[in-house]
Amino acid sequence: MSKPLILVVNDDGITAPGIKALVNAVKDLGEVVVVAPDSPQSAMGHAITINKPLRLKQVNYFGDIKAFHCSGTPVDCVKLAVDKVLHRKPDLCVSGINHGSNSSINIIYSGTMSAAVEASLEGIPSVGFSYCDYGMEADFTAAAHFAKIISDSLLKFGIPKHSLLNVNIPKLPLAEIKGMKICRQALAKWEEEYLERTDPFGRPYYWLTGKFVNYDHGQDTDEWALANGFVSVVPVQHDLTAHHVIPFINENWNFDKLANAEEIPQNDSKRFNI
Amino acid sequence: MSKPLILVVNDDGITAPGIKALVNAVKDLGEVVVVAPDSPQSAMGHAITINKPLRLKQVNYFGDIKAFHCSGTPVDCVKLAVDKVLHRKPDLCVSGINHGSNSSINIIYSGTMSAAVEASLEGIPSVGFSYCDYGMEADFTAAAHFAKIISDSLLKFGIPKHSLLNVNIPKLPLAEIKGMKICRQALAKWEEEYLERTDPFGRPYYWLTGKFVNYDHGQDTDEWALANGFVSVVPVQHDLTAHHVIPFINENWNFDKLANAEEIPQNDSKRFNI
Repeated sequence: MSKPLILVVNDDGITAPGIKALVNAVKDLGEVVVVAPDSPQSAMGHAITINKPLRLKQVNYFGDIKAFHCSGTPVDCVKLAVDKVLHRKPDLCVSGINHGSNSSINIIYSGTMSAAVEASLEGIPSVGFSYCDYGMEADFTAAAHFAKIISDSLLKFGIPKHSLLNVNIPKLPLAEIKGMKICRQALAKWEEEYLERTDPFGRPYYWLTGKFVNYDHGQDTDEWALANGFVSVVPVQHDLTAHHVIPFINENWNFDKLANAEEIPQNDSKRFNI
Repeated sequence: MSKPLILVVNDDGITAPGIKALVNAVKDLGEVVVVAPDSPQSAMGHAITINKPLRLKQVNYFGDIKAFHCSGTPVDCVKLAVDKVLHRKPDLCVSGINHGSNSSINIIYSGTMSAAVEASLEGIPSVGFSYCDYGMEADFTAAAHFAKIISDSLLKFGIPKHSLLNVNIPKLPLAEIKGMKICRQALAKWEEEYLERTDPFGRPYYWLTGKFVNYDHGQDTDEWALANGFVSVVPVQHDLTAHHVIPFINENWNFDKLANAEEIPQNDSKRFNI
């Protein structure tokens, strides 16, 4: 019997405690290979490296488990792993365990989730795990417990093509976690504020700060699940088309007329008169 | 009567010809302010800068139009513009005109589109424009023509909340473009290959190369529109939930049982026996 091949990636970098916890969680489920960034790559979103070459180096961080660090982004790690390390698509890609939540809208900023999305684009069953505790001293026991259960289920039961999972684990002891909830992404956003400071040379610079605001009162969301002691499991896809908006534009914008307009009609001031 | 406030951003950097074409296209539609990266930021996806401070500097690239360059990513530019330059949400955010296509799956790698998505998250009507010609010498006449029409329509007719537009213009003279098609994102992907080379010190490095493959034969896709001489207009949203997968997991994964499992059941070898 062949063992499943499992690719482990993350965005906090290969030395982060979270990836060690994930490797330990899945190592009995198959043959594990790690390809992870050589430095922290949080909030890199779906960035890829196109204008400079990448480096890849075999390292020895995980005992007898084959591991490489890469100079690129989390998405680069997945691409490079498939082409140059594994030489085939793995049976599963697990990303994380991220230090901090990737629930709700955080998914689009998250390197952890973008790595998992990239694997899914390649047709690889994949999942990103995030633990709602930013600390480097965080206790990953509960997160690793659920990472193992879900990774095992993905291997056994699969997931429809072009979809993957975004899993967040609340900051609670394992005994206090009520279970897992399959849910949708909550409608929430960050309200940003930039701190303005002055450098030693008198020039201004800006630090991003922000407040997470949840506008969504649904009880079927990831935010609800996490606030109520559940692990949130959101199935994710990468068709970004807003299908419901197609009829709106067809009905409200006169596309045929617009396309042939020699001159743009004057702004009819519907929206901008005082 | 107040004039609409229009934020112009891009990912190719503030000196790229594409953003100049876009500024010229929209400058008669309202009060235009530019905040764009100080260096090329292609393929940055939805990356944001969280671990270092940002710089912002007023520049004089566009005559009497207020313009700033920023040391961060395209998404940083939008966030910083709203908080520190405009001090309010603009009435429209236009991103581009990108040098090269952002149709289909390219949207998730694209800094141009991520900037537009970020504006949409803030509740700002927004659109990203891309011209299917990578060259720095490209002729943006046709692209600018459609950018003006679509920006004007967005101001006049609006778009449902939490959605935005991804517009791609084929590499054709204006007279040969057949019109605009509202379409969905084609199911396509990049098949990567990394070139392996050796540096002067004998160490290997890797360059990303790839081939774009369209698996989608639908005639309602952006790839079809572009291949057939139309401008593609895809409405985009940022709820990544794969709603159709929720019942699959509920039916196929025994979540209640899994959550309470003391021990993970042995891999039942359904998928990995030889």
